[in-house]
Amino acid sequence: MRPGLALAAGLALAVALAVWRRRRRPVREVLFFPSQPSCTEELLAEAAQPGVPARPCLCPLPRRDSSFTRLLRHLLGARRSLDVCLFAFSCPQLGYAVQLLHRRGVRVRVVTDELNMGSGGSQIGFLRRAGIQVRHNQDGYMHHKFAIVDGTLLITGSLNWTTQAVQNNWENVLVVDDVKFVKPFQDEFERIWEECNPVNYSFLSKDK
Amino acid sequence: MRPGLALAAGLALAVALAVWRRRRRPVREVLFFPSQPSCTEELLAEAAQPGVPARPCLCPLPRRDSSFTRLLRHLLGARRSLDVCLFAFSCPQLGYAVQLLHRRGVRVRVVTDELNMGSGGSQIGFLRRAGIQVRHNQDGYMHHKFAIVDGTLLITGSLNWTTQAVQNNWENVLVVDDVKFVKPFQDEFERIWEECNPVNYSFLSKDK
Repeated sequence: MRPGLALAAGLALAVALAVWRRRRRPVREVLFFPSQPSCTEELLAEAAQPGVPARPCLCPLPRRDSSFTRLLRHLLGARRSLDVCLFAFSCPQLGYAVQLLHRRGVRVRVVTDELNMGSGGSQIGFLRRAGIQVRHNQDGYMHHKFAIVDGTLLITGSLNWTTQAVQNNWENVLVVDDVKFVKPFQDEFERIWEECNPVNYSFLSKDK
Repeated sequence: MRPGLALAAGLALAVALAVWRRRRRPVREVLFFPSQPSCTEELLAEAAQPGVPARPCLCPLPRRDSSFTRLLRHLLGARRSLDVCLFAFSCPQLGYAVQLLHRRGVRVRVVTDELNMGSGGSQIGFLRRAGIQVRHNQDGYMHHKFAIVDGTLLITGSLNWTTQAVQNNWENVLVVDDVKFVKPFQDEFERIWEECNPVNYSFLSKDK
């Protein structure tokens, strides 16, 4: 074998091994909030037009990685589906990220709490107008705060998707791809999604 | 070797193996709420007087395992320490369980949210009167809902420790002993515990 060929084969093997190891490494991440302030404009612009370099943002916020940008990156990594179950959803950047995924062809489903969805700053109206499927509970509190990316990555914690929570509260978010956690949450999502199906609404019959 | 001796040796080996396997099995559990109704009286009575059979409770609630009894059992398993960080804490059974641990000599530390700790039904006053160390934040929302048992078991999710949340809300709790999750939460607890140290209170100087 010629030395050049051997080198190329060795390099290809090393790259393949690195890719395999990267794919096999389990995701077990903890994010704490309030997040350090950081600019998300370029991150969202690159997600809106993949492959097109974003124009530099002129805002004074630092460009560092933060809990908030980590959360956004995990969500924007969705390729097939995003299932979201949120007590409160009013953070504009997270609302924009979800709309981007919908436009990209990702199947987005959102369940939210009936009492919060109409409150000031809620993103739910924007999502519905964008054509995203949103359902809500009828009784009690739908107090979950989780998302499942591509059916394989669970994002869950104490954090509601509000600017208050991201910027001011002490909160936590776990990101995990262990099927022992992902599957029960996916099953719970499907159960809730069906329970919140509008064909099952009972308020009309209740009012009679 | 005599048959009896061989049998005893085999049994001892089997028991040792079973114990080893049990100790090695990672804890990865998901609990969903609202919990099915179930009686907790006998469980708490047995925890109060270990080794003494509890008198049968006469209430009509079923004796089944539920998300709530699972949560209680994990907490009552504490032997050395219990660190709790809770936005709202008003569930009497959970308050009683924490007091039991304190009486048993477990080092209990509680951090809670300043706005919630005085609200109706809050357990915080009972805990403080029982001699348990409780601290609270001064600004914003301390919105965590987690507990760490013996520094090795993390219990975290969307569930505040309130009867409303346990019995009525759609909630989740993860129970996990993976150090990748436990350690960041323990570090966060120590940080918050120090930040909420009364010697650091600033409201007196603020009022001047």
